[in-house]
Amino acid sequence: MDLERNKQTVLAFYEAGLNQKDFETASKLIGDRYVQHNPKIADGIEGFEAFLRQLREDFPALRAEIKRIFADGDFVIAHVHGVRVPGQLGTAIVDIFRLDQNGKIVEHWDVMQPIPEVAENQNGMF
Amino acid sequence: MDLERNKQTVLAFYEAGLNQKDFETASKLIGDRYVQHNPKIADGIEGFEAFLRQLREDFPALRAEIKRIFADGDFVIAHVHGVRVPGQLGTAIVDIFRLDQNGKIVEHWDVMQPIPEVAENQNGMF
Repeated sequence: MDLERNKQTVLAFYEAGLNQKDFETASKLIGDRYVQHNPKIADGIEGFEAFLRQLREDFPALRAEIKRIFADGDFVIAHVHGVRVPGQLGTAIVDIFRLDQNGKIVEHWDVMQPIPEVAENQNGMF
Repeated sequence: MDLERNKQTVLAFYEAGLNQKDFETASKLIGDRYVQHNPKIADGIEGFEAFLRQLREDFPALRAEIKRIFADGDFVIAHVHGVRVPGQLGTAIVDIFRLDQNGKIVEHWDVMQPIPEVAENQNGMF
């Protein structure tokens, strides 16, 4: 259990995967299986590959900015600002990853919510 | 920094606040301020009180089931299944809380997503 190593792995996974949309590099950080809980993505590493391919086509400028990152046990949790098209308000996201004992990513959950234009407080979603 | 104490505080906060909707008990777990990032809730402990009052009126049977809980530094992160009305599919939620050095809750962020009826994988959102 190496919390800092696991955080660094997940940060590298965001950069290679969501930001660079480079499946080859990102897939090296995935373990023997990749259990997917995002309801719009198919299970397994094949589902992740298809997701990245679709991102490259539909949202080539999509960026994920990691606002804070946490680790506890085998899990890494990231609070992320996702912007599909530059200039949009974007989406508040929390991703949860489980890593195996070799520090490879083997499971993924997420929750996403569009950032509204108006809010009841002035603190922002991050 | 007491990770286990902080987790227990947040679990007690869910039970008193969201499940019992008991502002008096829940408010004892809040520190000098309560910075609110949920865009639908007003800032401060007054905003939280109004939120609980509304919940009692609109969704008296609302339940929050904590699926997993994490702690790192001053933060506690919970992956939660929220069901406003029994029998509904409900909402996937991640709440992030910051606690002060006395173990009181002083800041809250969340992300919420309705659980869809159909999904691209069979793993569920939790």
